[in-house]
Amino acid sequence: MTSKNKFVGYRCSICGKEYPPEDFRYTCDRDGGNLDVILDYQRIKLNLSENLVNMQEHSIWRYLPLIPTTDPGGDLTPVKSVGWTPVYEPKGLSEKLGLERLYIKDEGKNPTASFKDRASVVVAARAQDIGAEVIVTASTGNAGAALAGMCAAMDTQAVIFAPKSAPPAKIAQLLIYGADVYLVDGNYDQAFDLSLEASNEFGWYCRNTGYNPFTAEGKKTAAFEIWEFIKNLSLKKISMDQWNVFVSVGDGNIISGIHKGFKDLNELGWIDGTPKIFGVQSVGSSAIYNAYTSGTEHIEAVAADTLADSISVDMPRDGLRALRAATQTGGAYIQVTDDQILQAISDLGSVGIFGEPAGVTSYAGVRQAIAQGLIDEKDPVMAVMTGSGLKDVNAAMSAVSSAPVIEPSLQALKQLL
Amino acid sequence: MTSKNKFVGYRCSICGKEYPPEDFRYTCDRDGGNLDVILDYQRIKLNLSENLVNMQEHSIWRYLPLIPTTDPGGDLTPVKSVGWTPVYEPKGLSEKLGLERLYIKDEGKNPTASFKDRASVVVAARAQDIGAEVIVTASTGNAGAALAGMCAAMDTQAVIFAPKSAPPAKIAQLLIYGADVYLVDGNYDQAFDLSLEASNEFGWYCRNTGYNPFTAEGKKTAAFEIWEFIKNLSLKKISMDQWNVFVSVGDGNIISGIHKGFKDLNELGWIDGTPKIFGVQSVGSSAIYNAYTSGTEHIEAVAADTLADSISVDMPRDGLRALRAATQTGGAYIQVTDDQILQAISDLGSVGIFGEPAGVTSYAGVRQAIAQGLIDEKDPVMAVMTGSGLKDVNAAMSAVSSAPVIEPSLQALKQLL
Repeated sequence: MTSKNKFVGYRCSICGKEYPPEDFRYTCDRDGGNLDVILDYQRIKLNLSENLVNMQEHSIWRYLPLIPTTDPGGDLTPVKSVGWTPVYEPKGLSEKLGLERLYIKDEGKNPTASFKDRASVVVAARAQDIGAEVIVTASTGNAGAALAGMCAAMDTQAVIFAPKSAPPAKIAQLLIYGADVYLVDGNYDQAFDLSLEASNEFGWYCRNTGYNPFTAEGKKTAAFEIWEFIKNLSLKKISMDQWNVFVSVGDGNIISGIHKGFKDLNELGWIDGTPKIFGVQSVGSSAIYNAYTSGTEHIEAVAADTLADSISVDMPRDGLRALRAATQTGGAYIQVTDDQILQAISDLGSVGIFGEPAGVTSYAGVRQAIAQGLIDEKDPVMAVMTGSGLKDVNAAMSAVSSAPVIEPSLQALKQLL
Repeated sequence: MTSKNKFVGYRCSICGKEYPPEDFRYTCDRDGGNLDVILDYQRIKLNLSENLVNMQEHSIWRYLPLIPTTDPGGDLTPVKSVGWTPVYEPKGLSEKLGLERLYIKDEGKNPTASFKDRASVVVAARAQDIGAEVIVTASTGNAGAALAGMCAAMDTQAVIFAPKSAPPAKIAQLLIYGADVYLVDGNYDQAFDLSLEASNEFGWYCRNTGYNPFTAEGKKTAAFEIWEFIKNLSLKKISMDQWNVFVSVGDGNIISGIHKGFKDLNELGWIDGTPKIFGVQSVGSSAIYNAYTSGTEHIEAVAADTLADSISVDMPRDGLRALRAATQTGGAYIQVTDDQILQAISDLGSVGIFGEPAGVTSYAGVRQAIAQGLIDEKDPVMAVMTGSGLKDVNAAMSAVSSAPVIEPSLQALKQLL
């Protein structure tokens, strides 16, 4: 199946205006709205039954019929290691929280150790489809590392604009993968604007989160995996719409991508309802939460300040769709403090899961949702942990007490004990 | 199959003295030699055919019939995410090196991001079998992080002695996973000795690499995965003994574990010959290389000094078996400089694989082996990349030029370009 047989155009998420698939286009020319990719569900259904995903492929590419690109190749490279991440059921934490069923999806096991690989590899595949040779992005670190890593594996040039305050591990990844890296003396939002200007000026294909319609098409694969996981649990008395999926939210593109995935499954008739989707923001970066609690779709910029760098955003670039991911599924938005985020690092670590601050924010939101009575102990919960703790060791060290230094003798140890 | 049906005793790697499986024992009482675990191959063969590994299990536990423990449980935890790591074929690098077939096995995709999870989870399973409640280890970081992570997932207490010079990321992992951590004001060898004393004094089960016979039984699973991978390639004209497996060597337990895996497969008659096994050491930590080039099995301590902290070892704790992994398979020992190791980080990064210094030392050894004429362009090569680059970001930064900082304006960018 080529991309032409399944990808049939774009639709503006604000005004609904449609564009043909041949258009080289990022956003709506009428109102600047983010574009949804339109798939030909009827044709996909004709060619596939629910059981016809490629079960042998343990990556996002098992869902190729639902991804609007051709197969990017790179069979024995990190390209084919993206996704199909493990789901854990940490009994220690579910007991602590009083939940009957708590699952954590560990996106740190992606090739560059974050969820962003899903978007970057699909954008890189799209670049290959349209013959683009350079891909540019702004990034707080993870999206850039993912793009740099996928481009390295596919022999494509990546250009990354990152705020110079990004954690060292993320900058190291960008450089090691051979990207052209510019550290912007400003915040993520300024890096974002600069990358757009550079994209226009030099004709580079722009991966920017939300802005490029294909990022959500990569991120939606997490919803497919959650669907398959839940299906395989075979909990006959629990229907899909009783499930609660928690997602950390900065720009809003991960949550809107996951929502798109569930919408695809509904269009195909493969799923009975959609889980409630909960967006979790840091108190210091809560533009979408603010709109949610005000009951408006109008999102206003904030002056972001949170240790969870991956979700530290003044103006969410996919805010509207991110808001609707909660409002259209019966979910909600929740905010948590940096202290709650640090506690979440420690909680997850205690059961063998090491996440970065933005990664564990979803789990912090689960605790907060219970405190607010938003979910009940019987409600099954899936929290998406979006990035490895190794991405931001300094933050991790703030979450724990330091270790004692001792002389190398049994006597010194005994004295300490 | 319980552990009693397959695990039938220990055999000293120096004098051959055997001990029954009931013995609580680490090393030989006659000469202190490391002990090999003896399996009942006849009984395993009776119960299994070559095709009867559990194909549904995508972790080391697919080989449970060949692992001398019972199933540790923890089905939806990191315990069942250890191993089954991806193998990449980076065409960019094989062309650069003039090799026809170069494969890299990415152990950074293990739950705590290093090869050591294989050993730690099997030792933790053994601890469960014998009712041990506390597990202690000395570690330069990775083995400790692996033990801490697996113990967290299995709700067992871990005690770790690490040199205080271990990279921050590795120490952060230990603490986040909730281990009792002691930073030893000394080197790895001193931490090792202290952990043995503490183990004896407090009755803690000791995981120490090489010293505990079960570490190699976990590490051997990498050989099983390499065997399955090669089998599935179906290269009919290339027999198993034409393959060349490259392994970074510090304590020597990974290479001896991999050798043990191939020996198991030979005993079972499932494999036609053994790949040549090449050990790669840093010039600054080359005790086994020195013995190899001197043609002796007597290994003398060195004063280790290399940036590859995970293989920085004065006296290898599994030196003899590590040496024999090369001499008994027609392989060799090779040494590489720290500069060659940094170059290897950069080479692998350029194809999307980010490794820590000790992790990429195996690949540096491939380049060195070609330069020395030890392998030919037609020889298929598998290099085991033992740990994620996120484990040691400072070392990574030494391997690349830093990125320019720019004002957030197109003009500033243009000036720079």
